[in-house]
Formats: sequence, structure tokens, C-alpha cells
Amino acid sequence: MSKEITSREQDYSQWYNDLVIKGSLADYSAVRGCMVIKPYGFALWENMRDALDKMFKDTGHVNAYFPLFIPKSFLSKEAAHVEGFAKECAVVTHYRLMNDPNGGGIVVDPEAKLEEELIVRPTSETIIWNTYKDWIQSYRDLPILVNQWANVVRWEMRTRLFLRTAEFLWQEGHTAHATPEEAIAETRQMLEVYATFAEEFMALPVIRGVKTESERFAGAVDTYCIEALMQDGKALQAGTSHFLGQNFAKAFDVKFLSKENQLEYVWATSWGVSTRLIGALVMAHSDDDGLVLPPKIAPLQVVIVPIYKGDEQKAQIGAKADEIMKGLKALGIRVKYDDNDNARPGWKFAEHELKGVPVRLALGARDLANNLVEVARRDTKAKESISLDGVVEHIEKLLVDIQQSMYNKAAAYREEHITKVDSWEEFEKVLDEKGGFVSAHWDGTAETEDAIKEKTKATIRCIPLNNTQEDGKCILTGKPSKERVLFARAY
Amino acid sequence: MSKEITSREQDYSQWYNDLVIKGSLADYSAVRGCMVIKPYGFALWENMRDALDKMFKDTGHVNAYFPLFIPKSFLSKEAAHVEGFAKECAVVTHYRLMNDPNGGGIVVDPEAKLEEELIVRPTSETIIWNTYKDWIQSYRDLPILVNQWANVVRWEMRTRLFLRTAEFLWQEGHTAHATPEEAIAETRQMLEVYATFAEEFMALPVIRGVKTESERFAGAVDTYCIEALMQDGKALQAGTSHFLGQNFAKAFDVKFLSKENQLEYVWATSWGVSTRLIGALVMAHSDDDGLVLPPKIAPLQVVIVPIYKGDEQKAQIGAKADEIMKGLKALGIRVKYDDNDNARPGWKFAEHELKGVPVRLALGARDLANNLVEVARRDTKAKESISLDGVVEHIEKLLVDIQQSMYNKAAAYREEHITKVDSWEEFEKVLDEKGGFVSAHWDGTAETEDAIKEKTKATIRCIPLNNTQEDGKCILTGKPSKERVLFARAY
Ligand SMILES: [Zn+2]
Ligand SMILES: [Zn+2]
Repeated sequence: MSKEITSREQDYSQWYNDLVIKGSLADYSAVRGCMVIKPYGFALWENMRDALDKMFKDTGHVNAYFPLFIPKSFLSKEAAHVEGFAKECAVVTHYRLMNDPNGGGIVVDPEAKLEEELIVRPTSETIIWNTYKDWIQSYRDLPILVNQWANVVRWEMRTRLFLRTAEFLWQEGHTAHATPEEAIAETRQMLEVYATFAEEFMALPVIRGVKTESERFAGAVDTYCIEALMQDGKALQAGTSHFLGQNFAKAFDVKFLSKENQLEYVWATSWGVSTRLIGALVMAHSDDDGLVLPPKIAPLQVVIVPIYKGDEQKAQIGAKADEIMKGLKALGIRVKYDDNDNARPGWKFAEHELKGVPVRLALGARDLANNLVEVARRDTKAKESISLDGVVEHIEKLLVDIQQSMYNKAAAYREEHITKVDSWEEFEKVLDEKGGFVSAHWDGTAETEDAIKEKTKATIRCIPLNNTQEDGKCILTGKPSKERVLFARAY
Repeated sequence: MSKEITSREQDYSQWYNDLVIKGSLADYSAVRGCMVIKPYGFALWENMRDALDKMFKDTGHVNAYFPLFIPKSFLSKEAAHVEGFAKECAVVTHYRLMNDPNGGGIVVDPEAKLEEELIVRPTSETIIWNTYKDWIQSYRDLPILVNQWANVVRWEMRTRLFLRTAEFLWQEGHTAHATPEEAIAETRQMLEVYATFAEEFMALPVIRGVKTESERFAGAVDTYCIEALMQDGKALQAGTSHFLGQNFAKAFDVKFLSKENQLEYVWATSWGVSTRLIGALVMAHSDDDGLVLPPKIAPLQVVIVPIYKGDEQKAQIGAKADEIMKGLKALGIRVKYDDNDNARPGWKFAEHELKGVPVRLALGARDLANNLVEVARRDTKAKESISLDGVVEHIEKLLVDIQQSMYNKAAAYREEHITKVDSWEEFEKVLDEKGGFVSAHWDGTAETEDAIKEKTKATIRCIPLNNTQEDGKCILTGKPSKERVLFARAY
């Protein structure tokens, strides 16, 4: 193998880093906590972004762009929002540099101090609701269904590529409505959009739920989420959709004249997913040989590797590969012919496995003579020799099959790792030995939630939507409970 | 009219602002110098971005993403680059906020001061070349053909929506090559991509040229540009493509092992266009009634306005409109049926004119009875009644015709406003009375260029590519010259 990958068993965390870096998705940068998203990783993000963007537009949303900077005073306006976000932010205090009068390169010009500091957006509710004040006068201006694709900055002290970085890319939807019913319907619609995207494009089964009060977004009335399970048994929040009530409308004084001619505060939602999803994708599907990417969003779906000696064989194989490529491209399949002379087939096989290309064709001179081609699928590593007649249709079906198999495998793993427990002893044992989601009764108080977190590092990931109602006793306090919630250790 | 637009004659600058703001493209924000790009303006940008992105990919480029922040010390590394960019930047000095101990909202935590200040990228050459150092070892790693779509910040004191804002959106290509020939070919290829985009998509004729030394990008060996002409006779630089030589490779010590086994510095290019192009688009084509947008990038290409009394007529017209919409959509044409009951047809006509929708159909009950529909084109304001049979094909052709007419009109205006002059008196007179490009001899020195700029505010926009060589005398100094250059007052 060209690039050594740490195995999951050996060091799960290093395995993840190896995949991201050696798989050419991203790398650390010279700026603490900020990553460089490399072309291969960015192509993956583009496929994810484009699929999501289409789903947003199909549900009536439009894109817009708001300023990168937020005046410091804006963050003071919504009390709960400050609590959650004000702490770790990049703060712009000056607007000019100058040559060091002592000749030491360049320095910040002390004269160019801003009157009010600007915060690099950690999220845009405040600047957007300050803008919506100008956009909304009457019920005729509602709903506003706007999304923004943007970079945001949260000054994290402990960072991990994609999972937690100081700067990341995301989309943030910010909608405004005349009624709470409509806003709640929007919140849940977008949760469903996220769940559908995760399941259909990322092959990632998710649990749809609602957060407890202590896990809610700062400033939200309700936070809905989708939760996914990683191969190490830890959960990962893959998207959130918030019903914000009238909190931001009140903070920024955004009222509308209703049909009944009353001045009322506007109802709000916000919802977002980020490049963190790439981290989830890597950890959910990959193996010790590298990335395993779902065909629907893989930058490259098929690679063809020629195996030849001499120019004559190379030309013959090249001609056949051209024909196959033409057929695949006509179906919109992303394919590459890897005829790089500087690498041997074995090296190429390992490289494409590392990068998670779903299907590899190996085309040799003997194959060609027998009208055969070797087809290898990345997810199961299964190989078969098939006739060159109908190879294009075979691959088209195979890609669909791989997408479905990957989902099924992840779903089976997830099902196997939702464990009902009814005692504290069991609860700790499952968390420590099996991992995954633990479905348990809880007395509904933040105190108990905190105590459990302190003892086990497990948090309540969510209260699943359409949760079964049943009588039980809190695993920690023994107090009565009406439903189980899902606990897990999480990213 | 619903929204009053200042005429060009009355106040050109206010006319431009009215179009941008009342035409729903963008607006000022609460942050000095930063704009909000509204959904309609952003849809226009998306169409421009997608067309450009496709052209970049068709010429072998891939996208990536680099950090928003640049360590201050990086800007000191390339001397000429500092000179051009170090001055007006947003500087991040702190990474945490805290609750004011005196209860006055939130304040910057003085303990959380960065050891080295971070600059919000004004352009990314430095951070990218610092990264390329890790990516490039041998000639096999070259060329690197990377583009980034990003926001950048330049702390401009005098801002104008789209034309000059503190934050703007752009793309920046950064390529690395083994030879100067290849890098220069890339620089010129991208200039041609920009020119083709401006002419074919924006209907904006441009002059391809090269900048004089004083107008070069900071750190470039050569800056190529496309220059467009606005309706007030001022020029606007619509895109630049820089051959950077080995300047950044030397500053960041990026060497490669050549085929001949020699360690050599890498050759670089960078090229970019920004949301400034939207300003150019507005000023090149629009009129006193509002925006005039070229069909290829217009967010909405066709709008259908029903004219009816009562529900029965509305239903009949709606059914016919549905049929037309289906036909147009099948051809990929962006169409909207404006059946808003709260506005009268006259108001809608004015609104769609203001927003520059290329084609408007008015469909009334009498028209329907006669199997007719009224088709109005935005660019010439011409109206005609045509048969409903074949309306879809008619519109398809009409959109092509409008695109071409808009280009022709702008090209004719531009041709009429390139004036050859051979004396200083003429030079000043043309600049003051006619405007446009002035083609004149210049002695080739930066001193003369400066003197002309001081006297007239005109700058050398470019030395056109494939410029005619002819003997002449500098209009200011009378010294000998071998070719004419293009002067203009510019945005
Ligand atoms: Zn297990
Ligand atoms: Zn004229």
C-alpha cells in the first residue's frame, strides 16, 4: 500500500484523521483550527451542497447573502442567544495595517480602531433579523423563505477536521412566518429534508427527534435534530432545525400588520447543516483500507484501470475504455480513466480504495481477448468478471445497489445498537461495552440530565418524534417517566 | 409607477442606486460598507457563478477552499504584495467575548488576545502558496489548477453597492506550473474565459488588454484585464488575470524537482472576477425604467401577467398560462405566472420592467378568445400580438434575439466611444464632453501616466492585446511612442 492507514481497532481517532488527510479530503492549515478543504473533499461537498440546494429550492426557498460581520451590540439583543454564542468568537477590532515604523514588517495601525468591534458571524440570526425588519411590513410580505450558504467561525479550542473547526462551511435557513403553526410546520419540514438527504444521498440512517431544554439552540423554543450513529458507537448530530418563536422578532422589533389589521411579532425558524456532515460520512461507512463513499455523492463513481504491456495493448485497451466511458457519461455517471504511466495497477487499486471510489474496473489484455472485464465494488470488496457486452448497464445497476447496500448495512448496525435498558447498572454497562444509543426512562429534569452526563459523559441525543408513550422509572432517580429518550456518548 | 427611479440624466449615480435597491438586487446593511445581496440579486449571481464555474471546469480546473484568515506575518513575505494590499484590512485581534462585569451587555475579553493578529483575506495568494508548499514536490504534482469561490474583505472608505464594498463575493483561481510558458498560457486562457463570459452571457463587449506597470496587481509580473464601457462613458475593469512569475513561490519557498532533476521555483497565476460584475451589468444595459437583464443570466426570463375580470376568466386564462408555462419549462426557460390578486396589471408591468425581466406576456380574456397573446420585450419595449399557436417557439427565439440585440447595442455604443486623439487639447475635450475610451500615444513612463491622471482623472485602462504598432508622439510630453493605449475615467 502506498499510504499506511491506522486501523480502527488500533486507534479510531487516528484512523479518522488518516482517512481525511491521506484520502485527500482536507488538511490542517497554517491558521490554528482552520482547515483547507482539498479539491477531492470539496468536490464531495459540492455534490452534497447541490443536492441539498435543490431540495431547498423544491420546497420554495431562495438563497441570499448577508454580511460576514455582526456588530457586537447585536449579540446582546437576544438574551438566551448571547448565553449560547457570545463566548468564543473572532473579533475584528481594527481596519488598517501599516509598515512598522521600526522596520519590522507590518503592524496593526493603532489609529485605525473600530468604534464598535465586529464579530465574525458564528451564526447569522441577529444580522438577518435586523435586515428582516426592513423587509417585513404586512402579512403580504410573509413568509420569507431564505437560505444562505456561507462560512462561519466559532473559536473552538480543541479542533478535529470537519467535525469541529474554527471556520466551517454551512447553510443556514432563516424563515419568517405570520403564525406559529406555519413556523413549526416549516421547522419540521426542513428536519425531514435533512433526514431524507442523509438517508438517500449519504446512505446514513438517522433518528429524527427533538432536543431537551438543555441541549436546545441558544434562542430557540424547540430544537429538532437528526442523529446518526458512527462505527465507534458514538452518536453525531447531523443537522438541526429550530423553531425560534418570536424571540428574534422581539429582540429586533420585527412586527407585521396581520390580515386582521393587528401589529404582531413575526414567527421565526432557522436550520442548518455543515461540512461536519463530511465527518459523519467518513466515520459511518469507511473501513481500514480507506474511505467508502456512497455513489450518489462520490466525486468519482467509477474508475477504469488499464493493465497492459507495451503500446499496442495500451492502445487496444484505451479504445475499449473510451467506449465504456462514453456509455457511462451518457448516463451521467462520473468516470475517470486512470492511465497514468507513473504508477503500477496495484498502487492505483490501493489509491482508489483509499479514496472510496465505489466501482473499479480493471481492464487487461487477456480480459479484452475474452470480452471480459473485472468489476470490483468498494463497499464489499467483491470482485467479478463480467462480459463487456452490457457492462454499462451492469454498472448503472451496481451503483444503485451499492448505495442501497451501504444504507442497509448502516441501518442494521444502527438497529443493533439501540438498546433498551431499565437499570442504572445496565445503562453504564451498555455505554461502556456496547456503545450506541441507549433507550431509557428519564425523569424529565435538567438536574438528572446533568448528573447522568457528569457520571457517564452520555447526553440525551433526542426525544424521538412519534415516541411511544409508556410508564417507567428514571434510570438514575427512579422517579416516574412517561417515555424513553435516547442517550449516547456523542461527537 | 410603484417605485420612482431617478433618471440617468438627472443623477446617474442615484439612478444606479435606485436600480440596485428598488430592483431588489441588494441593499446596505447595518455593517458599514457591507451589503446584503437580496434573493433576486443572488439568483442573478448564482446564474453568473454557475456559468463561470462550468467554464472553469471545462478548462480543467477544480474547486477547493482555503481559510478565511491570514496570519499577519504572511502578508510581509511578498514585498510588492504588501505594498498593494496591506493597508485597508479587517484585523482580528481577539477570540473571545464575555459578559461585561459592569453589566453593560457584552465586551471583548481582554485576556483572549491572539499572539499574532489574523487578517480577514483581502485575496488569498499568501495562504494558498503557503499550502502549495505541502502539495508540490515534483513536476508530477504540476500543474495545480485550483479555483476558490469565497468572500473577501477590503476596508474601503467610500463604498458603492456591488462596485466597491468592504465585503464582496468572488472567485479566485490560483494555479501552479512548471514553466513560465505554461503559466502565461494559463493567464491568457483565463482572460479569454472571462471575455467570453462577459460577451456571451452578460452581453457585455470587453476589450482584452494588459495593464501598465503602475496599474498591475501587487505581486504580479503582468496583469491582463478585460475592460467594459458603462453608459456614462466611464470604463469598468470587469476581470483580471495575473501572471505572478515566481514571486510567490520564492516568498513561500515552493520548489519542485523538474524532469531534469533540478530544484526549481514554481510559476504562478491568479485570476478573479467578483460581484462587481453585477454593477457592470446594471450600468451597461439598464434604462430609466429599471434593469435590463440579458436572458442567459436573468433570474426570471419570462413573466406571464393575466388580465381578467371574475373567477371564470381567471380560470380560463390560468389554464392557458399553465399550458404555455409547461412548454417553456420543457425548454429550460425560467418562467413565472404572476397571478397575485393584490396588484393590478399596470403595477405588475412596471414592477417586471423595474426588475428587468426580458419578456412579458400579457394574457387577457379577449386575447384568449382571438387565440392571441401580447408579447413585450424589455430591452426595446417593443410589443406585438402573436398567435397562441407556436408562442413557445416564438419566445425561445425571442430570448436569443434579445441576448444578441443587447450585445449589439452595447458593442455599437462602445465602438462609437473609442476615440483616437493626437493632441492634448483634443484629449481633454473628448474626456470631458464625450467620454469613453480615448486611444492615444503615451511615452511609456509612469511619470507621464501619473501626470495625466492628476490632470484629468483618466487612467490607462490597458494596452490592448494584438495592438497595432505605429509611430506617434505622446499626447502630453510629445516624446516618441510606438503604439496607442486606451485611456478613460473609470469606476
Ligand atoms: Zn457491536
Ligand atoms: Zn455618446
